[in-house]
Amino acid sequence: MKTRFALLSSLFLILVLVGCTNTPTPAAPTVAVDPLPSWNDGPAKRAILDFVKTTTDKASPKFVAPEDRIATFDQDGTTWVEQPIYSQVLFAFDRVAEMAPQHPEWKTKMPFKAIVTGDKEAIAKFTLMDIEVIAMATHTGMTTEAFGPIVKDWMAKAKHPRFDRPYPQMVYQPMLEVMKYLRDNGYRTYIVTGGGQDFVRAYAQQVYDIPPEQIIGSALDIQYTYNKEGQGILMRDPKLLLNNDGAGKAEDIYLFIGKHPKAAFGNSAGDRQMLEYTQAGDGASLEMLVLHDDATREYAYGPAQGLPDSKVGTFPQALYDEAKRKGWTVISMKNDWKQIFAWEK
Amino acid sequence: MKTRFALLSSLFLILVLVGCTNTPTPAAPTVAVDPLPSWNDGPAKRAILDFVKTTTDKASPKFVAPEDRIATFDQDGTTWVEQPIYSQVLFAFDRVAEMAPQHPEWKTKMPFKAIVTGDKEAIAKFTLMDIEVIAMATHTGMTTEAFGPIVKDWMAKAKHPRFDRPYPQMVYQPMLEVMKYLRDNGYRTYIVTGGGQDFVRAYAQQVYDIPPEQIIGSALDIQYTYNKEGQGILMRDPKLLLNNDGAGKAEDIYLFIGKHPKAAFGNSAGDRQMLEYTQAGDGASLEMLVLHDDATREYAYGPAQGLPDSKVGTFPQALYDEAKRKGWTVISMKNDWKQIFAWEK
Repeated sequence: MKTRFALLSSLFLILVLVGCTNTPTPAAPTVAVDPLPSWNDGPAKRAILDFVKTTTDKASPKFVAPEDRIATFDQDGTTWVEQPIYSQVLFAFDRVAEMAPQHPEWKTKMPFKAIVTGDKEAIAKFTLMDIEVIAMATHTGMTTEAFGPIVKDWMAKAKHPRFDRPYPQMVYQPMLEVMKYLRDNGYRTYIVTGGGQDFVRAYAQQVYDIPPEQIIGSALDIQYTYNKEGQGILMRDPKLLLNNDGAGKAEDIYLFIGKHPKAAFGNSAGDRQMLEYTQAGDGASLEMLVLHDDATREYAYGPAQGLPDSKVGTFPQALYDEAKRKGWTVISMKNDWKQIFAWEK
Repeated sequence: MKTRFALLSSLFLILVLVGCTNTPTPAAPTVAVDPLPSWNDGPAKRAILDFVKTTTDKASPKFVAPEDRIATFDQDGTTWVEQPIYSQVLFAFDRVAEMAPQHPEWKTKMPFKAIVTGDKEAIAKFTLMDIEVIAMATHTGMTTEAFGPIVKDWMAKAKHPRFDRPYPQMVYQPMLEVMKYLRDNGYRTYIVTGGGQDFVRAYAQQVYDIPPEQIIGSALDIQYTYNKEGQGILMRDPKLLLNNDGAGKAEDIYLFIGKHPKAAFGNSAGDRQMLEYTQAGDGASLEMLVLHDDATREYAYGPAQGLPDSKVGTFPQALYDEAKRKGWTVISMKNDWKQIFAWEK
């Protein structure tokens, strides 16, 4: 027996040396691991599981070739919290406060004055134009290299006003699971956001495990120029190139990817065209919309289904009706999500 | 011995069952296969081999993380023939001839008249504006879905005026080898072309093994709208969104990829900023410019190094001098390329 043991030992050694112990082990006995543990059993979870199963099974008529496996996710309200206001707007407000010493004129000039003086009433009355003025003043006039670290720094420090946690913790655990599940099955996951492309790129790898080239967002018309040392730099000038919202989402998916996604996830009127464009492709597709109907654990707003109206992330009844008519799945946060945030008990 | 043999046999069986025989075999004995057989030994070939070796060796100070391995290639004059005129311009001219029956007004309206009547003298005098007018008339007014097949059809039929071969055969074999060699070493290869993004996307998978999302080109401002059946469609409207040439190449690489390439290949003044932007990134980089100095096997034009001047793919002396000053490698077609086309004897 000793010889046999020695022989086994040396064979084991050879296995280790040729790296055989790193070989994937054979298919484990069928203790199926749930890829979506934060989802309650129900039509939404089943739609995702069915979609992945049928589109990755070569024998299925709905099989999707690996190169066509593309899934797009809206960000605000779909992968993380967008209430009471988009994170990027809070970022811009914080930037105004930080930049104020270099801009004494802001003390008397609206809309900056409202932020500098902490006039909450005036802030609440900001128009879209006010926010655009603030966004341009705080997001431009620097190189692309300088902008990323500013965002990263804010993401580490700033906290959500209600939940008192940094934004990277305000991501929805069920959506992280869907992203990973899709990637594990050969899908490339993209963020397709009305928010700033460079803003999201600064943290998307860390938060979503998605690289910069798979972030499609609203984008400035960046200008290539030269610094004093004669080195080429990219300047963030105050001019918008892409408004990646509504029809812009379908247009920009085509611009960046050149084909229809196979799965698309959204939550508001601005995602309608992305879902339509997804469904317009050949073969199988999955379209999902998050309905925020859980005021206790997150927020409740629509106005679809009698939920309170909201200026941020509007989900109109017409979109709800289109979803029902076209076979899109509406995700009820309240009923479909067992857990919303990773840090929940 | 028999027992030992039996033991070995059953162990071998186990190895087969657990899939160990599929494990990559240990490093093969050093019969090195040349990844660049169409290149003559010389500084250009050595620069490519050195770059790949040092940037993929974890022990090297020039190691590049897999996620940052991005290589960008200009197309016309860099990966395939651009003389006597860009393939896309010939495509547009052929489209005019094909569309003429639906446009009786073209018989008398310049610049279309010149093409319809075959007036070579007038065609030779076309301005950039004439070509733009022709491009817009032949490339727009259809859905994105309709455009691709038109290009594919032309690529299969049209032949190069001198070499009498379809354009997919006018690609440079040495560049195909570089692309494959880079991909085999974890680099993602992008085409970054002044040509139309959708034009190149129509054949890039077939010709370069590059998927649509890795084609960055000049792009129309595509519009999402609805057809009579109420289905969402993308219309090619006659408005340019991205002019992907010169500074536009650096800007659009940033827009699409969000980071500096590690390697960039070009051949003309329009590639300068792409190479500058590549070199401006941290760490190792490779910048190469193809000099067309082989009138016998292909074409000879500059005007750098005393070569004849050319309106198409100008390589000015200033670019040549910048290359020498900055350590970019100039590829001499005549000296560095053993074989230019795959079909050459």
